[in-house]
Amino acid sequence: MRKQWLVKTRSVRPATKYGGKDVVDIPRERLDQYRNLKRDFKEEKYINLNPIQRGGILTLEAREALLEFGDGYSTCDWCPPKEARLDAIKRPPIAQFMRDLAEFLNMDVARVVTRCREAQFIVFATLGEPGDYVVVDSLAHYSTYIAAELARMKIKEVPHTGYPEFKLDLNAYADKIEEVRRDTGKLPAAVLLTHVDYLYGNLNDAAAVGKICKKYGVPFILNAAYTAGVMPVDGKKLGADIIVSSGHKSWAASAPTGILAIKEEFAEKVLARSKTVGDWSKRKFGLKEYALLGCTVMGAPLMSLMASFPHVVERVKRWGEEVENARYLVEQLERIEGTRQMGTKPKQHTLIHMESDGLYKASQTHKRRGFFLYDELKRRGIVGIQPGLTKHFKLNSYGLPREKVELVANAFLDIAREQGLNVS
Amino acid sequence: MRKQWLVKTRSVRPATKYGGKDVVDIPRERLDQYRNLKRDFKEEKYINLNPIQRGGILTLEAREALLEFGDGYSTCDWCPPKEARLDAIKRPPIAQFMRDLAEFLNMDVARVVTRCREAQFIVFATLGEPGDYVVVDSLAHYSTYIAAELARMKIKEVPHTGYPEFKLDLNAYADKIEEVRRDTGKLPAAVLLTHVDYLYGNLNDAAAVGKICKKYGVPFILNAAYTAGVMPVDGKKLGADIIVSSGHKSWAASAPTGILAIKEEFAEKVLARSKTVGDWSKRKFGLKEYALLGCTVMGAPLMSLMASFPHVVERVKRWGEEVENARYLVEQLERIEGTRQMGTKPKQHTLIHMESDGLYKASQTHKRRGFFLYDELKRRGIVGIQPGLTKHFKLNSYGLPREKVELVANAFLDIAREQGLNVS
Repeated sequence: MRKQWLVKTRSVRPATKYGGKDVVDIPRERLDQYRNLKRDFKEEKYINLNPIQRGGILTLEAREALLEFGDGYSTCDWCPPKEARLDAIKRPPIAQFMRDLAEFLNMDVARVVTRCREAQFIVFATLGEPGDYVVVDSLAHYSTYIAAELARMKIKEVPHTGYPEFKLDLNAYADKIEEVRRDTGKLPAAVLLTHVDYLYGNLNDAAAVGKICKKYGVPFILNAAYTAGVMPVDGKKLGADIIVSSGHKSWAASAPTGILAIKEEFAEKVLARSKTVGDWSKRKFGLKEYALLGCTVMGAPLMSLMASFPHVVERVKRWGEEVENARYLVEQLERIEGTRQMGTKPKQHTLIHMESDGLYKASQTHKRRGFFLYDELKRRGIVGIQPGLTKHFKLNSYGLPREKVELVANAFLDIAREQGLNVS
Repeated sequence: MRKQWLVKTRSVRPATKYGGKDVVDIPRERLDQYRNLKRDFKEEKYINLNPIQRGGILTLEAREALLEFGDGYSTCDWCPPKEARLDAIKRPPIAQFMRDLAEFLNMDVARVVTRCREAQFIVFATLGEPGDYVVVDSLAHYSTYIAAELARMKIKEVPHTGYPEFKLDLNAYADKIEEVRRDTGKLPAAVLLTHVDYLYGNLNDAAAVGKICKKYGVPFILNAAYTAGVMPVDGKKLGADIIVSSGHKSWAASAPTGILAIKEEFAEKVLARSKTVGDWSKRKFGLKEYALLGCTVMGAPLMSLMASFPHVVERVKRWGEEVENARYLVEQLERIEGTRQMGTKPKQHTLIHMESDGLYKASQTHKRRGFFLYDELKRRGIVGIQPGLTKHFKLNSYGLPREKVELVANAFLDIAREQGLNVS
């Protein structure tokens, strides 16, 4: 039998040892590795281009909030006994934050949940029934697929154009809704569009999908994990019924934090309260939003999200500059022989996917093979490109000041020249 | 229509305002409340008796880890591309931690999830089908009930003896399993016992329930939210098939962190991998553990749990002293006229539920009514008793040095004397 839950490299461990008093003991030398845990790639030391990390770098205020609210259940000192829910707490101002968060996204109600993927699961599980369909874009993140799987729902994908643009055919949302209706006799439980996808960083016209959903009367979920918190997102203008997003990806917050913002007409379903009654005790929990499992992020990451919020409200206004930086970086990288940006052009987001036949060619004769690019960048203080990749790699310029973007561009050009590649 | 998703006290807000470039703006005075977020009840300033908080106070090492890994996705710098899962990361040593965590609980496999309640939901959803029963103790936390509700399962409760001991009838687990079999024609999907309950802090003989479950062949889930991490818990000795616990409640970690530890024979089901296939793209995500939604706590709280682990391994060995402190505190509080401990005696856990007709009587003539107890304790540097309560209140002495336990005891006796109550 394949033990698929084990990490493949599991080493053989000594048999469990017992110390005095029936306590399982862990040898000191193994415990020592948890002492003084350090991160290699801190912002102070490196320019980190990791595509999932640039929007989640904490503000100074968020770092202070982490320490202040580090202890478990630190948010719960003033939990109001009669409401007894995280989103009802006024000190710290969590209740107000939920309202401001909803307003910022131009939605009606908001909750902070543990991850964007949990927000998706909550919505699927409350809007649909097992066996129902959700129509999603074929560039959706894996978490969209498995959130549907956990809700025991089926996926119908909207296609994209493939290489090199990978552009979604948004009109096909109507066809796929029709297809589900034809095959099952009912409409899909929901439609989901990934606002900007994780593979190519293509920005989609959410309003177009919003219109289709409105026409069919199907709830429209916008996955704004890569957009809300870094660029302006106006839920009502986009026709979104539900917005899900990721605090640690795009709101300068610690993981795990997800955002769930809802239009009023769907709030009653998505935030439905518990109806369970204990068969012997007759206990009830009618205040609790059951699909959220009651309280969600009762500690430090929520406080980091709140502490960064004033910064986030300001930074989305500077999105234009961020897109300019991304376009500049693409323009420079495309000067390298056989190198071009994947996805739609010009860039409308800072997540960039490059294809480089040139760098790949160089890797073929380099003693470090594909790892040379990683090594050479790191030598220049730049990390976050996946080690080993040269032909296709992703990077994200979000939040880098222009001089650092230029430094990154020059590093790539320099490396290309060193490898004897033509740079135009 | 009752807008049940709104906090009752919601104030009327000005209509959404738009700034330049279609950005929703939030007025500065509202943003100001998220600046300089401070916690009132820090450990340095107060003795905090809050029953849910004492086991979640961070170690210094955990505080350092929070800052080191504060940035979103900070754990993912070295995510191995071919395994691409949080529990496979070796730098920081997350993969090793999962193994050590399992070993410490004397189980086979462990994962860190976002909350103990999520761990319960994952287990219910993967071991059962909608409509199946779970047999639970009637003192289980609300999150057990709603985790079952979200998994669309039914609850069958094991009764307790009621006032004043509230002792669970553990033999009734067999009766309830039989009852489910008789009524539905099949065994319950799982049995859950709350090792120590949140209401009275009664410790249950988990091994007795383990034996019953083994006899019937029903998976046994032990909810060790109040036990693992503060006292020795040996899963195999207790006959637990699955242990769920809470990092922010009992492992000196930040919220949200849940622990899910599994015996080998159930790992394949609980940690089942995604089987979804994109209907158009043919994409698959066969590495991802679907009920966990793939990766879970990809940041600071996990690192706080790991950083505190060496301390936790040591502290459970001192559990005997903790129980002594709790018994001492109960003995002292019971010196107050009309005051007695609820639940089974003598205490076997540090979570204490007191009944005090004396303090209640005093509240009836006090100008602050029931709030006097809270006020008087706070004046003496003690917080964490729910404001307004006198007749029944809960407290937790876990982790307090003896001199602080004595200080707490003396404060109560002093307050009682001031109110003219008899102190024996």
